[in-house]
Amino acid sequence: MGHLRYGFQTTLAGIDYDDAVMQVTEALAEEGFGVLTHTDMRATLKNKLDVDFRRYVILGACNPKLAHQALEADPHIGLLLSCNVVVQEMADGDVMVSVADPRSMFGVVRCVSVADVAGEAAVRLRRVTDSLGIARPV
Amino acid sequence: MGHLRYGFQTTLAGIDYDDAVMQVTEALAEEGFGVLTHTDMRATLKNKLDVDFRRYVILGACNPKLAHQALEADPHIGLLLSCNVVVQEMADGDVMVSVADPRSMFGVVRCVSVADVAGEAAVRLRRVTDSLGIARPV
Repeated sequence: MGHLRYGFQTTLAGIDYDDAVMQVTEALAEEGFGVLTHTDMRATLKNKLDVDFRRYVILGACNPKLAHQALEADPHIGLLLSCNVVVQEMADGDVMVSVADPRSMFGVVRCVSVADVAGEAAVRLRRVTDSLGIARPV
Repeated sequence: MGHLRYGFQTTLAGIDYDDAVMQVTEALAEEGFGVLTHTDMRATLKNKLDVDFRRYVILGACNPKLAHQALEADPHIGLLLSCNVVVQEMADGDVMVSVADPRSMFGVVRCVSVADVAGEAAVRLRRVTDSLGIARPV
């Protein structure tokens, strides 16, 4: 389990890519985050630029209760929603999962209520990556 | 046209909400940004929490060429993609449009190549809000 400057990451070895996406989605649901958006960057880059890219999906994860609290505190906070989770296939076939740290993302907003919400979201998303890391079939 | 700490905003008066979303989408296309995701926060909050909320849509805007450059520079940059645009209906019926400033969003990544891409994206998105502001039927 690694720590990025703006997120958490873990690597899942010996797992099918689509299974990894499903496992991440289930781990997010355990912490109350639904996946509101699903962006397939590989397909987008192929369609728009005819560029070959590795499997790379961005999931937009949202905990509705926390999102509502943040929206009540700052009407523009949608600019920072949802919390992104990246699932990408590495050259060796492992799958890397990275999760945005809401404390970094929301750091541009200097508002105590928003910081509280970001803190709770961060704790939950850290548990998501921890659970994936512990569960990984190395 | 206002400047947020982490984005740009403008208000469209005397316009239908759905027309505003279409106008924003067209202005983004003019600057090479496609809308990859469309999150209806009003519907999400109603469905998940049974909360009534104003019309509030988050568009995930992506310029594929700039996204590709950013992805080549930093494999985790998907955590910060796409650039969000919020279209929300105000109490007086006006429609407020806010656009995330990629320079603020990408400020957490200390990478010169990423900063260059964020700078170009910011110039383009600033033009989007400027064009909407000029075009507004006040």
